[in-house]
Amino acid sequence: MKFPIDRERLSRELEQLAGISEMTPPAVTRVVFSQADLRAREYVNRLCTEAGLALRSDAVGNTFARWIGASPELAAVGTGSHIDAIPNAGSYDGTVGVLGGLEAIGALQRGGFHPRRSIELLIFTAEEPTRFGIGCLGSRFLAGLSAAAGESLRDAQGQTLNQVREAAGFTGALDGTRLPAGYYSAFVELHIEQGPLLERAGVPAGIVTAIAAPAALRLKIEGEGGHAGAVLMPDRRDALLAAAEIALALEKAARTSGAIDTVATTGMCEVFPGAINSIPSRVQMTADVRDTDEARRDRVLRQLAQAITETAQRRGVRIEEEIISVDAPAICDPAIVGVLEDVCRSQGLAYQKMVSRAYHDSLFVSRFAPTAMLFIPCRGGVSHRPDEYASPEAIAAGSAVLAEALAKLSLLS
Amino acid sequence: MKFPIDRERLSRELEQLAGISEMTPPAVTRVVFSQADLRAREYVNRLCTEAGLALRSDAVGNTFARWIGASPELAAVGTGSHIDAIPNAGSYDGTVGVLGGLEAIGALQRGGFHPRRSIELLIFTAEEPTRFGIGCLGSRFLAGLSAAAGESLRDAQGQTLNQVREAAGFTGALDGTRLPAGYYSAFVELHIEQGPLLERAGVPAGIVTAIAAPAALRLKIEGEGGHAGAVLMPDRRDALLAAAEIALALEKAARTSGAIDTVATTGMCEVFPGAINSIPSRVQMTADVRDTDEARRDRVLRQLAQAITETAQRRGVRIEEEIISVDAPAICDPAIVGVLEDVCRSQGLAYQKMVSRAYHDSLFVSRFAPTAMLFIPCRGGVSHRPDEYASPEAIAAGSAVLAEALAKLSLLS
Repeated sequence: MKFPIDRERLSRELEQLAGISEMTPPAVTRVVFSQADLRAREYVNRLCTEAGLALRSDAVGNTFARWIGASPELAAVGTGSHIDAIPNAGSYDGTVGVLGGLEAIGALQRGGFHPRRSIELLIFTAEEPTRFGIGCLGSRFLAGLSAAAGESLRDAQGQTLNQVREAAGFTGALDGTRLPAGYYSAFVELHIEQGPLLERAGVPAGIVTAIAAPAALRLKIEGEGGHAGAVLMPDRRDALLAAAEIALALEKAARTSGAIDTVATTGMCEVFPGAINSIPSRVQMTADVRDTDEARRDRVLRQLAQAITETAQRRGVRIEEEIISVDAPAICDPAIVGVLEDVCRSQGLAYQKMVSRAYHDSLFVSRFAPTAMLFIPCRGGVSHRPDEYASPEAIAAGSAVLAEALAKLSLLS
Repeated sequence: MKFPIDRERLSRELEQLAGISEMTPPAVTRVVFSQADLRAREYVNRLCTEAGLALRSDAVGNTFARWIGASPELAAVGTGSHIDAIPNAGSYDGTVGVLGGLEAIGALQRGGFHPRRSIELLIFTAEEPTRFGIGCLGSRFLAGLSAAAGESLRDAQGQTLNQVREAAGFTGALDGTRLPAGYYSAFVELHIEQGPLLERAGVPAGIVTAIAAPAALRLKIEGEGGHAGAVLMPDRRDALLAAAEIALALEKAARTSGAIDTVATTGMCEVFPGAINSIPSRVQMTADVRDTDEARRDRVLRQLAQAITETAQRRGVRIEEEIISVDAPAICDPAIVGVLEDVCRSQGLAYQKMVSRAYHDSLFVSRFAPTAMLFIPCRGGVSHRPDEYASPEAIAAGSAVLAEALAKLSLLS
């Protein structure tokens, strides 16, 4: 039972979606609730409507496109991903799971399949933390994030999430976004690997058994500014030099954790006032730590905390630490993993089981529904860059596995 | 012969000028050719016109306000400073030399003084490097900077200096900005110290005998981006971590130079793409090195170059180095220094001779005219910050010395 994926149409749709960007393709920038994001939502909504799916959005902008099954009273089978993109990103992160999921549904429709459970495509709001500093915003709300976040989360311009979502047309109480435990009987997210393992191994499919435990912090360093020519070195309290030491200490903690799976990144470092002849008085930086093992990740966080304390004392700067997220790892549902394995075998597609080190909305969906993920290889493991690339063949193969898996899951009682 | 400085009027004018800012006072932001800069120029021009001075501007926006003397064919005596300000700066850097210089001329006028040589107030364009990356832009042109800089210098938006100055109304050939060697018989710049020495010593006047040798570089670091969760630590080529090592190496080189006068600063560090979950692929940073001793400064530059080479190799990043300026130190004119000493003594004002570690337009004026500087104390040595402060008494005392010095220099044959 292999359903025919329309590879050319899927490639064309991915290309058209990539063209909806605040940058020139192939550089994709589509920050949540920007004009590009809103136009991309319109584009995907139109495709869903053309496929005969019933559309709804919740108060934070998560969009649900449902193919109603023969037993609409049963919990649905879900699939989906995100379409927002960090600045200067590529064309495949998230979008493969959205348009590949839609194409999987289209293949089932064209193949004459009749779902028992409804099959629903979910487009999550703001998987990327670019605007509000916190990743997987939409799926966090589905999993029960407090409505207070609508007021406490602010973007760089100081606008609250509530202001921004309402301006984008997503009104209503955030309390209503939480999905009940029986909403999905199963959820499968198709995604590019964003790492090099599948490509290196020459394996076209990765079945994810666990999603790594990520933690993200924001640090505000307050030193003392002054004229670069006039303040003597011993009198300085330079916020950037403190940030430099902390970033290097974080790297060292990750590199000496004892496991290759530990990664840590300082992705943002904003210097104020940022003039060539001014001593930096203030820095805002971030720290992102991930591991497949929560205890090992937390050891890195403790080493970071020590470096912060030590640097603050020695350099006479004040450092505020704000936890953006410290999430537990997720174990994928063994039954869904089993279905994915069966489908790969029946389609003659080699696969390997693997863990996901990257953050995904599935991490939060797993809190209220049985969840698994399917990875396809991407060139060089590259992601979050304009040269991010997955081949049409790889995307089509992943979508074909997804289609058959959705069909099987839809028929399960 | 002490001329009466109107302290209240001078304080009021400084306050009014500080109010012309892109930020809320006391935070002053007045980047060259911004709306705030253009309005500040109008304000100062109006004061000059009210004082009966003849105004002219050159092609880069340097403004000359001349009180014509009895022998207008003789080289003039010059004074002045700048009114542009870096982001989030204070109210006194530069402006004390402009409005204090204008008040000195007013005091001479009110005191019935008749100058022999013309006395000219000069308001330099863009002493601060904020917009075009290079400090003392106006005075560099007066000293013979090539007109090619009008095309080669660009702001962050990619506009050339020529585009920006012409949009601001300063047209004409940049070749015509150079001043001939006989244009000024003497030039004196009044300025806040921007360092703590006068305040610590309790001395109200500093007579500058030399201006430090500054050097400024811009570094572009190209690493490799990627997803913060997916790229393993040994596979990374993180541009920010390279920048962190270079900034710390620069600090170390300055701190171990053997002399307290060596200072080095990384004032800018811009990270691309700048997302919490993206490995930094590119960084633009600056290095600013100053010393009263050119050879010692150049040793620090060589250590910086070594650190750049070593870091680039070890981390697999590419680093481009662009020299923004490497200027020679200036020795102030002993005759003008003598006049300033005489005036301080005759006014009963304690003074000390000192070097300037900060960059000043006088560094470039000294290339075509006998030049000296007069420093007044500022609170805590603080500058380039909103809490920069010089007392009305200190400013008035400096202006009174300047007035009498301009008078004496104007009468010299």
